[in-house]
Amino acid sequence: MPRIIVQAIEGRSLEQKRHLVRAITTGVVDALSVEPETVTVVIEEIPREHISKAGVLYSDRPGKTAGAAAAEGRS
Amino acid sequence: MPRIIVQAIEGRSLEQKRHLVRAITTGVVDALSVEPETVTVVIEEIPREHISKAGVLYSDRPGKTAGAAAAEGRS
Amino acid sequence: MPRIIVQAIEGRSLEQKRHLVRAITTGVVDALSVEPETVTVVIEEIPREHISKAGVLYSDRPGKTAGAAAAEGRS
Amino acid sequence: MPRIIVQAIEGRSLEQKRHLVRAITTGVVDALSVEPETVTVVIEEIPREHISKAGVLYSDRPGKTAGAAAAEGRS
Amino acid sequence: MPRIIVQAIEGRSLEQKRHLVRAITTGVVDALSVEPETVTVVIEEIPREHISKAGVLYSDRPGKTAGAAAAEGRS
Amino acid sequence: MPRIIVQAIEGRSLEQKRHLVRAITTGVVDALSVEPETVTVVIEEIPREHISKAGVLYSDRPGKTAGAAAAEGRS
Repeated sequence: MPRIIVQAIEGRSLEQKRHLVRAITTGVVDALSVEPETVTVVIEEIPREHISKAGVLYSDRPGKTAGAAAAEGRS
Repeated sequence: MPRIIVQAIEGRSLEQKRHLVRAITTGVVDALSVEPETVTVVIEEIPREHISKAGVLYSDRPGKTAGAAAAEGRS
Repeated sequence: MPRIIVQAIEGRSLEQKRHLVRAITTGVVDALSVEPETVTVVIEEIPREHISKAGVLYSDRPGKTAGAAAAEGRS
Repeated sequence: MPRIIVQAIEGRSLEQKRHLVRAITTGVVDALSVEPETVTVVIEEIPREHISKAGVLYSDRPGKTAGAAAAEGRS
Repeated sequence: MPRIIVQAIEGRSLEQKRHLVRAITTGVVDALSVEPETVTVVIEEIPREHISKAGVLYSDRPGKTAGAAAAEGRS
Repeated sequence: MPRIIVQAIEGRSLEQKRHLVRAITTGVVDALSVEPETVTVVIEEIPREHISKAGVLYSDRPGKTAGAAAAEGRS
């Protein structure tokens, strides 16, 4: 049953997504003592023009391209 | 930004929840190379009478009390 | 895999919830040709003071108690 | 008000979606005694590379193409 | 922390989305006395063939193109 | 149709919730040119022991009671 939904800015690689679901599944199995087969992880990617902070769309933030923001570990 | 929502059957201890959010945050930080401060985890607990599988509420499953199911790592 | 989330105003009986998950599971099995075991239904109940229409909380609507609204099939 | 969200693997036909929303609406109307006009159904399709079970993305499962899995009624 | 998710039919312009996140952020800041920086708004667009009312997909409604419906302020 | 979900830490007053749904509805009506009757706002309150940042539950943060955090406009 445990179902985990990951909401993150669009743009991660398939390899990062593989690493992400493995790492989260391991964490949930350890913490809740459940079987790996019972753990579902769903990734929801959010386009930068569909999310805002302080009323400003991520896509409108000065200077911040997707790559730059991701590299700075802020999104 | 990464926001993680964990949906699980009601009944885990506070200590399990602490372990859960730590483990998931570490996993996300490793996989996505983001700062821990940017990672939010939200736990959504589901009462057994609010979830079904094959049309039968978990609370109506024969023999399975919450504790038994959790112990068997199936919920 | 098909996961169905039902969001409805708080106040239905356990018997209605049993009927609801059975009926939805049957409908999904028929429409998508999947096994009943793969169909999960989750019920999310919303308190009347946590939902609004046209800017007015359901709990503030003149004259409408929970029972009345439910009886009128409008919530 | 009843709002139903259906989360399923990407790939169903428009005709299956028509059948799905009809069947679910009928089930909800019967179970909750509400008017059909009050029932909203939303379909959320999940790409196979955005969902995992036991830490493995559906798109990485050996041998299982989308069609095969859907045909086997397991997703 | 306040996180606001806006679910609307696909088809709004980027300018409408800018106006939307500004207006919602201002409203939340006023009502909850929180800092703008703490307010996140996420827009989830729903394709017309993925949502139904009374068992009929929006895309199957007679006469109603996306533009017409949006212009009539009904979606 | 526009449906807005507000996720915030538990503890706001009924009056704040009234103000919140009015303000958000007005903002959405202005930005998307839709009728107020079509705008639904749902409030989802999150208990402090069900949300974490940087792997630490809000309820475990040193010194921060609910009231203090809310007063500082940070939650």
